[in-house]
Amino acid sequence: LLTVAEQSPGLVAPLIWGTDNRARVIGITGAPGAGKSTLTAALIDRFRADGRRVGVVAVDPSSPITGGAMLGDRIRMARHTLDVGVFVRSLANRGHPGGLSIAVPLTVRGLELAGFDIVLVETVGVGQVEVEIAGNADLVVVVINPGWGDGIQANKAGILEIADVFVVNKADRPGIQETIAELRGSQTLASAMAPPRWTEAPIVATVATESLGLEELMLALASRFDALHGRPQDAARHRSHQAIRQLETVLRSRVEALRSGGDGAAQLAELATQVAARRLDPWSAADELLRSLT
Amino acid sequence: LLTVAEQSPGLVAPLIWGTDNRARVIGITGAPGAGKSTLTAALIDRFRADGRRVGVVAVDPSSPITGGAMLGDRIRMARHTLDVGVFVRSLANRGHPGGLSIAVPLTVRGLELAGFDIVLVETVGVGQVEVEIAGNADLVVVVINPGWGDGIQANKAGILEIADVFVVNKADRPGIQETIAELRGSQTLASAMAPPRWTEAPIVATVATESLGLEELMLALASRFDALHGRPQDAARHRSHQAIRQLETVLRSRVEALRSGGDGAAQLAELATQVAARRLDPWSAADELLRSLT
Repeated sequence: LLTVAEQSPGLVAPLIWGTDNRARVIGITGAPGAGKSTLTAALIDRFRADGRRVGVVAVDPSSPITGGAMLGDRIRMARHTLDVGVFVRSLANRGHPGGLSIAVPLTVRGLELAGFDIVLVETVGVGQVEVEIAGNADLVVVVINPGWGDGIQANKAGILEIADVFVVNKADRPGIQETIAELRGSQTLASAMAPPRWTEAPIVATVATESLGLEELMLALASRFDALHGRPQDAARHRSHQAIRQLETVLRSRVEALRSGGDGAAQLAELATQVAARRLDPWSAADELLRSLT
Repeated sequence: LLTVAEQSPGLVAPLIWGTDNRARVIGITGAPGAGKSTLTAALIDRFRADGRRVGVVAVDPSSPITGGAMLGDRIRMARHTLDVGVFVRSLANRGHPGGLSIAVPLTVRGLELAGFDIVLVETVGVGQVEVEIAGNADLVVVVINPGWGDGIQANKAGILEIADVFVVNKADRPGIQETIAELRGSQTLASAMAPPRWTEAPIVATVATESLGLEELMLALASRFDALHGRPQDAARHRSHQAIRQLETVLRSRVEALRSGGDGAAQLAELATQVAARRLDPWSAADELLRSLT
Protein backbone atom coordinates (compact mmCIF):
# COMPACT_ATOMS: atom_id res chain seq x y z
CA LEU A 1 0.00 0.00 0.00
CA LEU A 2 2.83 2.41 0.87
CA THR A 3 4.49 1.83 -2.50
CA VAL A 4 1.27 2.52 -4.40
CA ALA A 5 0.69 5.56 -2.20
CA GLU A 6 4.10 6.98 -3.12
CA GLN A 7 3.54 6.52 -6.85
CA SER A 8 -0.03 7.77 -7.03
CA PRO A 9 -0.63 9.82 -3.90
CA GLY A 10 -3.79 11.41 -5.30
CA LEU A 11 -5.44 7.99 -5.68
CA VAL A 12 -4.49 6.52 -2.32
CA ALA A 13 -4.75 9.59 -0.09
CA PRO A 14 -8.57 9.68 0.01
CA LEU A 15 -8.59 6.05 1.20
CA ILE A 16 -6.15 6.46 4.08
CA TRP A 17 -6.45 10.10 5.13
CA GLY A 18 -9.54 9.76 7.26
CA THR A 19 -8.06 7.60 10.02
CA ASP A 20 -8.73 8.57 13.57
CA ASN A 21 -5.60 7.30 15.27
CA ARG A 22 -2.78 9.81 15.39
CA ALA A 23 0.88 9.07 15.97
CA ARG A 24 3.32 11.31 17.77
CA VAL A 25 5.63 12.44 14.94
CA ILE A 26 9.22 13.31 15.88
CA GLY A 27 11.59 14.76 13.28
CA ILE A 28 15.31 14.07 13.73
CA THR A 29 17.67 16.19 11.65
CA GLY A 30 21.28 17.37 11.57
CA ALA A 31 24.43 17.30 9.47
CA PRO A 32 25.73 14.02 7.99
CA GLY A 33 27.77 12.13 10.55
CA ALA A 34 26.15 13.76 13.59
CA GLY A 35 24.85 10.37 14.71
CA LYS A 36 21.18 10.68 13.76
CA SER A 37 20.73 7.02 12.86
CA THR A 38 22.41 5.75 16.01
CA LEU A 39 20.25 8.11 18.05
CA THR A 40 17.16 6.92 16.18
CA ALA A 41 18.04 3.30 16.94
CA ALA A 42 18.56 4.17 20.62
CA LEU A 43 15.19 5.98 20.72
CA ILE A 44 13.46 2.97 19.13
CA ASP A 45 14.81 0.81 21.98
CA ARG A 46 13.45 3.21 24.60
CA PHE A 47 10.00 3.53 23.00
CA ARG A 48 9.80 -0.28 22.54
CA ALA A 49 10.68 -0.72 26.23
CA ASP A 50 7.61 1.45 26.97
CA GLY A 51 5.50 -0.84 24.77
CA ARG A 52 5.05 1.68 21.94
CA ARG A 53 5.05 0.63 18.26
CA VAL A 54 7.58 2.69 16.32
CA GLY A 55 7.59 3.59 12.61
CA VAL A 56 10.66 5.19 11.06
CA VAL A 57 10.73 7.28 7.86
CA ALA A 58 14.34 7.77 6.71
CA VAL A 59 14.62 10.58 4.16
CA ASP A 60 17.62 11.23 1.93
CA PRO A 61 16.82 13.84 -0.74
CA SER A 62 20.26 13.61 -2.31
CA SER A 63 20.21 9.86 -2.86
CA PRO A 64 19.15 8.97 -6.43
CA ILE A 65 18.10 5.54 -5.27
CA THR A 66 17.13 4.35 -1.82
CA GLY A 67 20.58 2.93 -1.29
CA GLY A 68 23.88 4.61 -0.69
CA ALA A 69 24.01 6.22 2.71
CA MET A 70 20.73 4.57 3.68
CA LEU A 71 22.21 1.10 3.39
CA GLY A 72 24.58 1.71 6.29
CA ASP A 73 21.72 3.12 8.32
CA ARG A 74 19.60 0.09 7.64
CA ILE A 75 22.36 -2.19 8.86
CA ARG A 76 22.69 -0.14 12.03
CA MET A 77 18.95 -0.54 12.61
CA ALA A 78 19.10 -4.25 11.69
CA ARG A 79 18.56 -5.40 15.27
CA HIS A 80 14.96 -4.21 14.93
CA THR A 81 14.17 -6.10 11.73
CA LEU A 82 12.67 -9.09 13.54
CA ASP A 83 10.49 -6.88 15.76
CA VAL A 84 6.95 -6.45 14.33
CA GLY A 85 6.61 -3.37 16.54
CA VAL A 86 9.17 -1.54 14.38
CA PHE A 87 8.87 -0.62 10.70
CA VAL A 88 11.57 1.30 8.77
CA ARG A 89 10.77 2.95 5.43
CA SER A 90 13.45 4.75 3.39
CA LEU A 91 12.44 7.52 0.97
CA ALA A 92 14.70 9.04 -1.68
CA ASN A 93 13.86 11.80 -4.14
CA ARG A 94 13.12 9.61 -7.15
CA GLY A 95 9.62 8.45 -7.86
CA HIS A 96 7.68 10.86 -5.64
CA PRO A 97 5.28 12.97 -7.64
CA GLY A 98 5.14 16.23 -5.74
CA GLY A 99 8.45 15.67 -3.99
CA LEU A 100 9.39 14.40 -0.57
CA SER A 101 7.62 17.27 1.20
CA ILE A 102 4.31 15.63 0.43
CA ALA A 103 5.49 11.99 0.28
CA VAL A 104 6.51 12.11 3.94
CA PRO A 105 3.12 13.08 5.45
CA LEU A 106 1.48 10.41 3.29
CA THR A 107 3.90 7.76 4.56
CA VAL A 108 3.36 8.95 8.14
CA ARG A 109 -0.40 8.59 7.59
CA GLY A 110 0.12 5.03 6.32
CA LEU A 111 2.14 4.15 9.42
CA GLU A 112 -0.57 5.61 11.66
CA LEU A 113 -3.12 3.50 9.81
CA ALA A 114 -0.99 0.42 10.47
CA GLY A 115 -1.13 1.17 14.20
CA PHE A 116 2.28 2.74 14.90
CA ASP A 117 1.88 5.33 17.65
CA ILE A 118 5.37 6.85 17.43
CA VAL A 119 6.81 7.89 14.05
CA LEU A 120 10.43 9.04 13.80
CA VAL A 121 11.25 11.02 10.63
CA GLU A 122 14.99 11.15 10.04
CA THR A 123 16.30 13.71 7.51
CA VAL A 124 19.83 14.66 6.42
CA GLY A 125 20.93 18.30 6.51
CA VAL A 126 18.92 21.50 6.84
CA GLY A 127 18.01 22.54 3.30
CA GLN A 128 14.61 23.83 2.17
CA VAL A 129 13.23 20.30 1.83
CA GLU A 130 14.32 19.38 5.36
CA VAL A 131 12.66 22.48 6.81
CA GLU A 132 9.43 21.62 4.99
CA ILE A 133 9.58 18.04 6.20
CA ALA A 134 10.30 19.21 9.73
CA GLY A 135 7.14 21.30 9.55
CA ASN A 136 5.16 18.08 9.44
CA ALA A 137 6.59 16.78 12.70
CA ASP A 138 5.06 17.46 16.10
CA LEU A 139 8.56 17.87 17.54
CA VAL A 140 11.86 18.54 15.78
CA VAL A 141 15.08 17.22 17.31
CA VAL A 142 18.23 18.86 15.93
CA VAL A 143 21.37 16.74 16.42
CA ILE A 144 24.75 18.49 16.59
CA ASN A 145 28.20 17.52 17.90
CA PRO A 146 30.81 19.18 20.15
CA GLY A 147 32.81 21.73 18.14
CA TRP A 148 29.82 22.48 15.96
CA GLY A 149 30.22 26.16 16.89
CA ASP A 150 33.30 26.39 14.67
CA GLY A 151 31.16 26.18 11.51
CA ILE A 152 29.70 28.91 9.35
CA GLN A 153 27.28 31.33 11.02
CA ALA A 154 24.66 31.19 8.26
CA ASN A 155 24.15 27.42 8.50
CA LYS A 156 23.78 27.68 12.26
CA ALA A 157 20.87 30.11 12.03
CA GLY A 158 18.99 27.74 9.72
CA ILE A 159 19.39 24.77 12.03
CA LEU A 160 18.54 26.72 15.19
CA GLU A 161 15.20 27.96 13.93
CA ILE A 162 13.56 24.57 13.46
CA ALA A 163 14.64 22.97 16.77
CA ASP A 164 12.23 22.03 19.54
CA VAL A 165 14.90 19.96 21.31
CA PHE A 166 18.67 20.14 20.83
CA VAL A 167 20.75 16.99 21.16
CA VAL A 168 24.51 17.41 21.45
CA ASN A 169 25.53 13.88 20.52
CA LYS A 170 29.05 12.41 20.94
CA ALA A 171 29.12 14.28 24.25
CA ASP A 172 32.22 12.34 25.31
CA ARG A 173 34.27 14.39 22.88
CA PRO A 174 36.21 17.57 23.77
CA GLY A 175 34.36 20.90 23.54
CA ILE A 176 31.00 19.67 24.87
CA GLN A 177 30.69 22.40 27.53
CA GLU A 178 31.64 25.18 25.09
CA THR A 179 29.10 23.96 22.52
CA ILE A 180 26.30 23.84 25.11
CA ALA A 181 27.26 27.30 26.38
CA GLU A 182 27.30 28.71 22.88
CA LEU A 183 23.88 27.23 22.09
CA ARG A 184 22.45 28.72 25.31
CA GLY A 185 24.03 32.06 24.40
CA SER A 186 22.44 32.18 20.97
CA GLN A 187 19.07 31.24 22.48
CA THR A 188 19.33 34.09 25.02
CA LEU A 189 20.36 36.51 22.30
CA ALA A 190 17.41 35.55 20.12
CA SER A 191 14.85 35.67 22.94
CA ALA A 192 15.75 39.33 23.56
CA MET A 193 14.35 40.17 20.11
CA ALA A 194 11.33 38.08 19.17
CA PRO A 195 11.02 34.76 21.02
CA PRO A 196 10.42 31.89 18.55
CA ARG A 197 9.79 28.49 20.03
CA TRP A 198 13.38 27.28 19.78
CA THR A 199 14.61 29.82 22.33
CA GLU A 200 13.00 27.55 24.92
CA ALA A 201 14.28 24.31 23.36
CA PRO A 202 16.06 22.19 25.98
CA ILE A 203 19.62 21.04 25.28
CA VAL A 204 20.35 17.37 25.97
CA ALA A 205 23.84 15.82 25.86
CA THR A 206 23.97 12.21 24.62
CA VAL A 207 26.37 9.45 23.64
CA ALA A 208 23.99 7.53 21.41
CA THR A 209 26.36 4.63 20.79
CA GLU A 210 26.24 3.84 24.54
CA SER A 211 22.64 5.00 25.10
CA LEU A 212 23.88 7.69 27.51
CA GLY A 213 21.51 10.64 28.02
CA LEU A 214 18.55 8.78 26.52
CA GLU A 215 16.41 9.00 29.68
CA GLU A 216 16.91 12.75 29.80
CA LEU A 217 16.03 12.99 26.09
CA MET A 218 12.82 10.98 26.57
CA LEU A 219 11.79 13.32 29.42
CA ALA A 220 12.64 16.38 27.27
CA LEU A 221 10.54 15.05 24.38
CA ALA A 222 7.55 14.41 26.65
CA SER A 223 7.67 17.81 28.33
CA ARG A 224 8.17 19.65 25.02
CA PHE A 225 5.24 17.78 23.49
CA ASP A 226 3.04 18.83 26.41
CA ALA A 227 4.27 22.43 26.23
CA LEU A 228 3.67 22.77 22.49
CA HIS A 229 0.62 20.55 21.91
CA GLY A 230 -0.86 19.94 25.36
CA ARG A 231 -3.63 22.54 25.11
CA PRO A 232 -6.31 21.61 22.55
CA GLN A 233 -6.17 25.03 20.85
CA ASP A 234 -2.38 24.71 20.36
CA ALA A 235 -2.74 21.24 18.88
CA ALA A 236 -5.51 22.46 16.58
CA ARG A 237 -3.43 25.41 15.39
CA HIS A 238 -0.45 23.14 14.72
CA ARG A 239 -2.57 20.74 12.67
CA SER A 240 -4.15 23.59 10.75
CA HIS A 241 -0.72 25.01 9.83
CA GLN A 242 0.39 21.54 8.76
CA ALA A 243 -2.69 21.20 6.55
CA ILE A 244 -2.14 24.58 4.86
CA ARG A 245 1.48 23.66 4.13
CA GLN A 246 0.46 20.28 2.71
CA LEU A 247 -2.22 21.86 0.54
CA GLU A 248 0.22 24.43 -0.83
CA THR A 249 2.78 21.72 -1.51
CA VAL A 250 0.26 19.74 -3.54
CA LEU A 251 -0.77 22.87 -5.48
CA ARG A 252 2.86 23.78 -6.18
CA SER A 253 3.62 20.25 -7.34
CA ARG A 254 0.69 20.45 -9.79
CA VAL A 255 2.16 23.60 -11.33
CA GLU A 256 5.70 22.20 -11.41
CA ALA A 257 4.48 18.97 -13.00
CA LEU A 258 3.41 21.01 -16.03
CA ARG A 259 7.01 21.68 -17.00
CA SER A 260 8.30 18.20 -16.29
CA GLY A 261 5.81 16.52 -18.59
CA GLY A 262 3.11 15.69 -16.07
CA ASP A 263 -0.63 16.34 -16.36
CA GLY A 264 -1.37 19.23 -18.67
CA ALA A 265 2.13 19.54 -20.19
CA ALA A 266 0.76 19.25 -23.73
CA GLN A 267 -1.86 21.89 -23.03
CA LEU A 268 0.80 24.19 -21.55
CA ALA A 269 2.74 23.98 -24.82
CA GLU A 270 -0.39 24.70 -26.88
CA LEU A 271 -1.41 27.66 -24.72
CA ALA A 272 2.16 29.02 -24.77
CA THR A 273 2.04 29.03 -28.58
CA GLN A 274 -1.13 31.11 -28.43
CA VAL A 275 0.37 33.51 -25.87
CA ALA A 276 3.52 33.86 -27.98
CA ALA A 277 1.40 34.62 -31.05
CA ARG A 278 -0.55 37.23 -29.03
CA ARG A 279 -3.85 35.44 -29.56
CA LEU A 280 -4.17 34.96 -25.78
CA ASP A 281 -2.76 36.78 -22.73
CA PRO A 282 -0.92 34.91 -19.92
CA TRP A 283 -3.72 35.48 -17.36
CA SER A 284 -6.48 34.04 -19.54
CA ALA A 285 -4.16 31.19 -20.51
CA ALA A 286 -3.47 30.45 -16.83
CA ASP A 287 -7.22 30.32 -16.18
CA GLU A 288 -7.67 27.81 -19.00
CA LEU A 289 -4.82 25.71 -17.69
CA LEU A 290 -6.26 25.72 -14.14
CA ARG A 291 -9.61 24.59 -15.53
CA SER A 292 -7.96 21.69 -17.33
CA LEU A 293 -6.12 20.63 -14.15
CA THR A 294 -9.37 20.08 -12.24
CA LEU B 1 -3.96 52.45 -18.15
CA LEU B 2 -0.54 51.26 -16.97
CA THR B 3 -1.48 51.91 -13.34
CA VAL B 4 -4.71 49.92 -13.68
CA ALA B 5 -2.79 47.18 -15.46
CA GLU B 6 -0.33 46.88 -12.59
CA GLN B 7 -3.09 46.63 -9.98
CA SER B 8 -5.39 44.26 -11.86
CA PRO B 9 -3.29 42.57 -14.51
CA GLY B 10 -5.86 39.86 -15.14
CA LEU B 11 -8.48 42.44 -16.13
CA VAL B 12 -6.33 44.57 -18.38
CA ALA B 13 -4.16 41.92 -20.03
CA PRO B 14 -6.88 40.57 -22.37
CA LEU B 15 -7.45 44.12 -23.67
CA ILE B 16 -3.84 44.93 -24.49
CA TRP B 17 -2.20 41.58 -25.18
CA GLY B 18 -3.35 41.16 -28.75
CA THR B 19 -1.41 44.04 -30.27
CA ASP B 20 0.47 43.35 -33.43
CA ASN B 21 3.30 45.83 -33.07
CA ARG B 22 6.33 44.44 -31.27
CA ALA B 23 9.08 46.46 -29.63
CA ARG B 24 12.71 45.42 -29.44
CA VAL B 25 13.17 44.77 -25.71
CA ILE B 26 16.67 45.31 -24.27
CA GLY B 27 17.41 44.38 -20.66
CA ILE B 28 20.18 46.35 -18.90
CA THR B 29 21.45 44.88 -15.66
CA GLY B 30 24.48 44.98 -13.37
CA ALA B 31 25.57 45.82 -9.84
CA PRO B 32 24.53 49.10 -8.16
CA GLY B 33 26.87 51.92 -9.21
CA ALA B 34 27.99 50.26 -12.46
CA GLY B 35 26.49 53.15 -14.42
CA LYS B 36 23.34 51.50 -15.79
CA SER B 37 21.20 54.63 -15.67
CA THR B 38 23.81 56.82 -17.34
CA LEU B 39 24.22 54.18 -20.03
CA THR B 40 20.45 53.97 -20.45
CA ALA B 41 20.27 57.75 -20.90
CA ALA B 42 23.07 57.64 -23.49
CA LEU B 43 21.28 54.82 -25.35
CA ILE B 44 18.04 56.83 -25.37
CA ASP B 45 19.94 59.70 -27.08
CA ARG B 46 21.29 57.37 -29.76
CA PHE B 47 17.93 55.68 -30.45
CA ARG B 48 16.18 59.09 -30.57
CA ALA B 49 18.79 60.30 -33.06
CA ASP B 50 17.73 57.35 -35.27
CA GLY B 51 14.09 58.47 -34.95
CA ARG B 52 13.01 55.58 -32.68
CA ARG B 53 10.53 56.05 -29.82
CA VAL B 54 11.98 54.71 -26.58
CA GLY B 55 10.16 53.36 -23.52
CA VAL B 56 12.09 52.68 -20.29
CA VAL B 57 11.03 50.33 -17.48
CA ALA B 58 13.20 50.94 -14.40
CA VAL B 59 12.92 48.05 -11.92
CA ASP B 60 14.06 48.13 -8.32
CA PRO B 61 12.83 45.05 -6.43
CA SER B 62 14.35 46.19 -3.14
CA SER B 63 12.72 49.61 -3.06
CA PRO B 64 9.55 49.64 -0.92
CA ILE B 65 8.28 52.68 -2.79
CA THR B 66 9.18 53.86 -6.24
CA GLY B 67 11.53 56.40 -4.75
CA GLY B 68 14.90 56.00 -3.13
CA ALA B 69 17.53 55.01 -5.64
CA MET B 70 15.10 55.60 -8.47
CA LEU B 71 14.85 59.30 -7.70
CA GLY B 72 18.48 59.93 -8.61
CA ASP B 73 18.01 57.94 -11.80
CA ARG B 74 14.99 59.98 -12.77
CA ILE B 75 16.92 63.20 -12.32
CA ARG B 76 19.69 61.86 -14.52
CA MET B 77 17.12 61.04 -17.19
CA ALA B 78 15.41 64.41 -16.73
CA ARG B 79 16.66 65.80 -20.01
CA HIS B 80 14.23 63.42 -21.73
CA THR B 81 11.13 64.48 -19.79
CA LEU B 82 10.02 67.01 -22.40
CA ASP B 83 10.47 64.52 -25.25
CA VAL B 84 7.19 62.74 -26.17
CA GLY B 85 9.28 60.08 -27.88
CA VAL B 86 10.55 58.93 -24.48
CA PHE B 87 8.53 57.46 -21.61
CA VAL B 88 10.08 56.33 -18.29
CA ARG B 89 8.14 54.05 -15.93
CA SER B 90 9.55 52.99 -12.54
CA LEU B 91 8.38 49.74 -10.93
CA ALA B 92 9.04 48.74 -7.34
CA ASN B 93 7.98 45.55 -5.60
CA ARG B 94 4.92 46.92 -3.81
CA GLY B 95 1.52 46.74 -5.42
CA HIS B 96 2.23 44.18 -8.12
CA PRO B 97 0.04 41.11 -7.73
CA GLY B 98 2.15 38.27 -9.05
CA GLY B 99 5.40 40.14 -8.56
CA LEU B 100 7.66 42.10 -10.86
CA SER B 101 8.36 39.07 -13.04
CA ILE B 102 4.91 39.41 -14.52
CA ALA B 103 4.42 43.18 -14.07
CA VAL B 104 7.35 43.90 -16.39
CA PRO B 105 6.06 42.07 -19.51
CA LEU B 106 2.68 43.72 -18.99
CA THR B 107 4.26 47.17 -18.84
CA VAL B 108 6.34 46.36 -21.91
CA ARG B 109 3.14 45.35 -23.71
CA GLY B 110 1.54 48.65 -22.74
CA LEU B 111 4.50 50.59 -24.11
CA GLU B 112 4.30 48.62 -27.37
CA LEU B 113 0.62 49.46 -27.56
CA ALA B 114 1.51 53.15 -27.15
CA GLY B 115 3.81 52.90 -30.14
CA PHE B 116 7.27 52.68 -28.56
CA ASP B 117 9.49 50.51 -30.74
CA ILE B 118 12.45 50.25 -28.38
CA VAL B 119 11.94 49.29 -24.73
CA LEU B 120 14.86 49.39 -22.29
CA VAL B 121 14.32 47.40 -19.07
CA GLU B 122 16.79 48.47 -16.40
CA THR B 123 17.20 46.15 -13.35
CA VAL B 124 19.50 46.30 -10.33
CA GLY B 125 21.62 43.29 -9.43
CA VAL B 126 21.45 39.70 -10.60
CA GLY B 127 19.12 37.91 -8.19
CA GLN B 128 16.40 35.44 -9.13
CA VAL B 129 13.95 38.22 -10.00
CA GLU B 130 16.45 39.92 -12.31
CA VAL B 131 17.16 36.68 -14.14
CA GLU B 132 13.43 36.14 -14.63
CA ILE B 133 12.99 39.69 -15.87
CA ALA B 134 15.97 39.33 -18.18
CA GLY B 135 14.27 36.29 -19.67
CA ASN B 136 11.60 38.62 -21.04
CA ALA B 137 14.09 40.76 -22.96
CA ASP B 138 15.18 40.06 -26.53
CA LEU B 139 18.72 41.05 -25.59
CA VAL B 140 20.39 41.31 -22.18
CA VAL B 141 23.18 43.84 -21.63
CA VAL B 142 25.29 43.17 -18.53
CA VAL B 143 27.13 46.26 -17.28
CA ILE B 144 30.34 45.79 -15.29
CA ASN B 145 33.31 48.03 -14.41
CA PRO B 146 37.11 47.66 -14.56
CA GLY B 147 38.35 45.68 -11.56
CA TRP B 148 35.12 43.69 -11.45
CA GLY B 149 37.23 40.53 -11.66
CA ASP B 150 38.29 41.04 -8.04
CA GLY B 151 34.82 40.09 -6.79
CA ILE B 152 33.46 36.78 -5.63
CA GLN B 153 33.49 33.93 -8.16
CA ALA B 154 29.92 32.82 -7.47
CA ASN B 155 28.36 36.18 -8.36
CA LYS B 156 30.35 36.28 -11.57
CA ALA B 157 28.91 33.02 -12.85
CA GLY B 158 25.36 34.28 -12.31
CA ILE B 159 25.93 37.51 -14.19
CA LEU B 160 27.82 35.85 -17.06
CA GLU B 161 25.06 33.39 -17.88
CA ILE B 162 22.40 35.93 -18.77
CA ALA B 163 24.57 38.25 -20.94
CA ASP B 164 24.05 38.71 -24.69
CA VAL B 165 26.31 41.78 -24.72
CA PHE B 166 28.89 42.80 -22.10
CA VAL B 167 29.50 46.49 -21.45
CA VAL B 168 32.59 47.40 -19.44
CA ASN B 169 31.57 50.90 -18.40
CA LYS B 170 33.90 53.51 -16.82
CA ALA B 171 36.51 52.24 -19.28
CA ASP B 172 38.73 55.24 -18.50
CA ARG B 173 39.57 53.67 -15.14
CA PRO B 174 42.62 51.48 -14.45
CA GLY B 175 42.30 47.74 -15.05
CA ILE B 176 40.16 47.94 -18.18
CA GLN B 177 42.39 45.64 -20.27
CA GLU B 178 42.68 43.04 -17.50
CA THR B 179 38.91 42.98 -17.03
CA ILE B 180 38.26 42.49 -20.76
CA ALA B 181 40.94 39.79 -20.93
CA GLU B 182 39.44 38.01 -17.94
CA LEU B 183 35.94 38.13 -19.43
CA ARG B 184 37.24 36.68 -22.73
CA GLY B 185 39.09 34.00 -20.78
CA SER B 186 35.98 32.87 -18.94
CA GLN B 187 34.02 32.82 -22.22
CA THR B 188 36.66 30.60 -23.85
CA LEU B 189 36.71 28.32 -20.83
CA ALA B 190 32.93 27.92 -20.88
CA SER B 191 32.71 27.34 -24.65
CA ALA B 192 35.01 24.33 -24.29
CA MET B 193 32.31 22.62 -22.25
CA ALA B 194 28.78 23.38 -23.44
CA PRO B 195 28.44 26.62 -25.42
CA PRO B 196 25.59 28.75 -24.03
CA ARG B 197 24.77 31.94 -25.88
CA TRP B 198 26.86 34.22 -23.69
CA THR B 199 30.14 32.62 -24.80
CA GLU B 200 29.64 34.54 -28.04
CA ALA B 201 28.57 37.79 -26.35
CA PRO B 202 30.66 40.73 -27.62
CA ILE B 203 32.47 42.91 -25.07
CA VAL B 204 32.12 46.67 -25.52
CA ALA B 205 34.08 49.27 -23.53
CA THR B 206 32.21 52.51 -22.78
CA VAL B 207 32.45 55.74 -20.83
CA ALA B 208 28.72 56.43 -20.63
CA THR B 209 29.12 59.85 -18.99
CA GLU B 210 30.90 61.06 -22.15
CA SER B 211 28.99 58.83 -24.61
CA LEU B 212 32.22 57.08 -25.56
CA GLY B 213 31.82 53.62 -27.13
CA LEU B 214 28.11 54.15 -27.82
CA GLU B 215 28.42 53.63 -31.60
CA GLU B 216 30.16 50.33 -31.04
CA LEU B 217 27.46 49.31 -28.54
CA MET B 218 24.67 50.17 -31.02
CA LEU B 219 26.36 48.00 -33.67
CA ALA B 220 26.84 45.16 -31.18
CA LEU B 221 23.15 45.30 -30.20
CA ALA B 222 22.03 45.21 -33.84
CA SER B 223 24.29 42.31 -34.82
CA ARG B 224 23.38 40.32 -31.67
CA PHE B 225 19.69 40.84 -32.34
CA ASP B 226 20.12 39.51 -35.88
CA ALA B 227 22.20 36.57 -34.70
CA LEU B 228 19.71 35.55 -31.99
CA HIS B 229 16.36 36.50 -33.53
CA GLY B 230 17.06 37.01 -37.24
CA ARG B 231 15.78 33.63 -38.37
CA PRO B 232 12.00 33.22 -37.97
CA GLN B 233 12.32 29.85 -36.21
CA ASP B 234 14.71 31.37 -33.62
CA ALA B 235 12.36 34.28 -32.97
CA ALA B 236 9.42 31.87 -32.62
CA ARG B 237 11.29 29.67 -30.16
CA HIS B 238 12.31 32.69 -28.09
CA ARG B 239 8.71 33.95 -27.90
CA SER B 240 7.44 30.49 -27.02
CA HIS B 241 9.93 30.21 -24.13
CA GLN B 242 8.90 33.68 -22.96
CA ALA B 243 5.25 32.66 -23.03
CA ILE B 244 5.82 29.48 -21.01
CA ARG B 245 7.74 31.46 -18.40
CA GLN B 246 5.00 34.08 -18.19
CA LEU B 247 2.30 31.43 -17.88
CA GLU B 248 4.17 29.67 -15.09
CA THR B 249 4.71 32.97 -13.30
CA VAL B 250 0.98 33.71 -13.38
CA LEU B 251 0.15 30.21 -12.13
CA ARG B 252 2.69 30.47 -9.32
CA SER B 253 1.37 33.88 -8.31
CA ARG B 254 -2.16 32.45 -8.10
CA VAL B 255 -0.96 29.80 -5.66
CA GLU B 256 1.11 32.30 -3.64
CA ALA B 257 -1.81 34.74 -3.48
CA LEU B 258 -3.73 32.12 -1.49
CA ARG B 259 -1.47 32.57 1.50
CA SER B 260 -1.28 36.37 1.29
CA GLY B 261 -5.03 36.85 1.42
CA GLY B 262 -5.78 37.00 -2.30
CA ASP B 263 -8.46 35.12 -4.22
CA GLY B 264 -9.41 31.91 -2.48
CA ALA B 265 -7.65 32.64 0.83
CA ALA B 266 -10.88 32.10 2.79
CA GLN B 267 -11.48 28.81 1.02
CA LEU B 268 -7.90 27.72 1.69
CA ALA B 269 -8.50 28.25 5.42
CA GLU B 270 -11.77 26.29 5.32
CA LEU B 271 -10.23 23.40 3.36
CA ALA B 272 -7.20 23.36 5.68
CA THR B 273 -9.54 22.93 8.65
CA GLN B 274 -11.08 19.90 6.94
CA VAL B 275 -7.65 18.44 6.09
CA ALA B 276 -6.47 18.98 9.67
CA ALA B 277 -9.61 17.24 10.99
CA ARG B 278 -8.95 14.33 8.55
CA ARG B 279 -12.29 14.82 6.83
CA LEU B 280 -10.43 15.52 3.55
CA ASP B 281 -7.00 14.61 2.16
CA PRO B 282 -4.61 17.29 0.76
CA TRP B 283 -4.95 16.08 -2.86
CA SER B 284 -8.74 16.22 -2.94
CA ALA B 285 -8.57 19.60 -1.16
CA ALA B 286 -6.13 20.90 -3.79
CA ASP B 287 -8.52 19.82 -6.54
CA GLU B 288 -11.36 21.70 -4.88
CA LEU B 289 -9.19 24.79 -4.49
CA LEU B 290 -8.14 24.66 -8.16
CA ARG B 291 -11.79 24.42 -9.18
CA SER B 292 -12.64 27.50 -7.13
CA LEU B 293 -9.75 29.47 -8.67
CA THR B 294 -11.13 29.10 -12.17
